Formats: sequence, structure tokens, C-alpha cells
Amino acid sequence: MESLVKNMNMVQLIFDLQAGLKFAFWNRMSIAHDTKLAQTEPSPTEFTIGHNVGSKGEVDKVMEQAKKAGATITVEANDTFWGVYSDYFQDPDGHLWEVVWNPQWDITE
Amino acid sequence: MESLVKNMNMVQLIFDLQAGLKFAFWNRMSIAHDTKLAQTEPSPTEFTIGHNVGSKGEVDKVMEQAKKAGATITVEANDTFWGVYSDYFQDPDGHLWEVVWNPQWDITE
Repeated sequence: MESLVKNMNMVQLIFDLQAGLKFAFWNRMSIAHDTKLAQTEPSPTEFTIGHNVGSKGEVDKVMEQAKKAGATITVEANDTFWGVYSDYFQDPDGHLWEVVWNPQWDITE
Repeated sequence: MESLVKNMNMVQLIFDLQAGLKFAFWNRMSIAHDTKLAQTEPSPTEFTIGHNVGSKGEVDKVMEQAKKAGATITVEANDTFWGVYSDYFQDPDGHLWEVVWNPQWDITE
């Protein structure tokens, strides 16, 4: 389920991911306004969002979807020396996403 | 459960929050290295982490804990015009946390 919340100049898009967890998109200007901080230059190295999937093929599939949706690939999918198969891309707002298959983690839908 | 993962110069502290959800702390230099991006100046207005709790008293309690742990309060707890009781603080790395009681959301532990 997703919902769009509008409060004056603040617009949020909220996704219910699972019990107790929501993921919301909110523009930087509104974050600055609401937290009473000066808005600063975007910095992609502040955080990454990890999306763990169940196989290498699924990593490749999500990567293709991201490319088609306008993402910028910063690291193509590869077998890393620490044992996971992963990539990184930036969404159109510059936020970093990692799509990962980690054979040591069980993924439950 | 938490675990400390060390890979060369990359150190991560990973918290298992609930089924399928992990929250990891990782330094900006490692994010830049791993994503092949240049490290940029910290920007607190990139994202906020929301912590929803079950009452106004619980908001105040978490706020006190954050203060004692060295947080910088940017917005003291208050009744907002959109109906929630919330505050904002920055952790010692500058990341923004919001502690919120939203009477329209059910909180399940």
C-alpha cells in the first residue's frame, strides 16, 4: 500500500513495506524546513539503501529495471571478494542503492 | 542481535531489527570506496530516520536518552499542526533522527 501525504509545501510518498516498517520519499527542502536546519548540498555518500534478493539472476533483473527507470550505474554487478554478488546504482535524486545476493543470508519474502 | 563485520578498511556494525530488516552503520569513506564515488561533504538534509513510539511520554524518554548519548536537538518535542508529537535530533555523525508519536498509527512491538 502506498499513500501520498500533503502538508502545505511538504509532500511525502509513503510505502508500507512490512509490519512496522514504512519507507517514505520526501524532498530535501522539506527535510531542512521541518528539522530547522539549513539545506545543504546533496551528498550521495551519506547512506545507501540495500536491497537483498535471492539469487544472482535476481540481482541482474533488478539492475535492468533500474537502468530502464533512469538509474546511473556506479558499480556493475560482480562477485566481490567478501562473497556477495552485488552492484550499486544512483536513482535520479542521487541516492545510492545496492542490490545484493548474499549466499550466507536467508531471504524470506 | 548485532554483528561487527570487518573487511579490510571497511567496518560495519549491523543490527537485525526484525525479519528481513537490517540496519547497518558504515563510515562515509567506505561508502565512497565501495560505490566508486568521490566522498562528498556530509549533508544532514539527505535523509531522516523515523522512530515511531507508542506515546508522548515515550517520545520524551527516547529524547532524554539521545541527549545523554550526545545528540544535538534541532527541534524539541512538540505537538505539530498535522497531529503528531515529535522532535528531531542529530547523532554525533550528523544524521537526523525523528522520534514520533502518531495517534493515527498503530505501533506493534
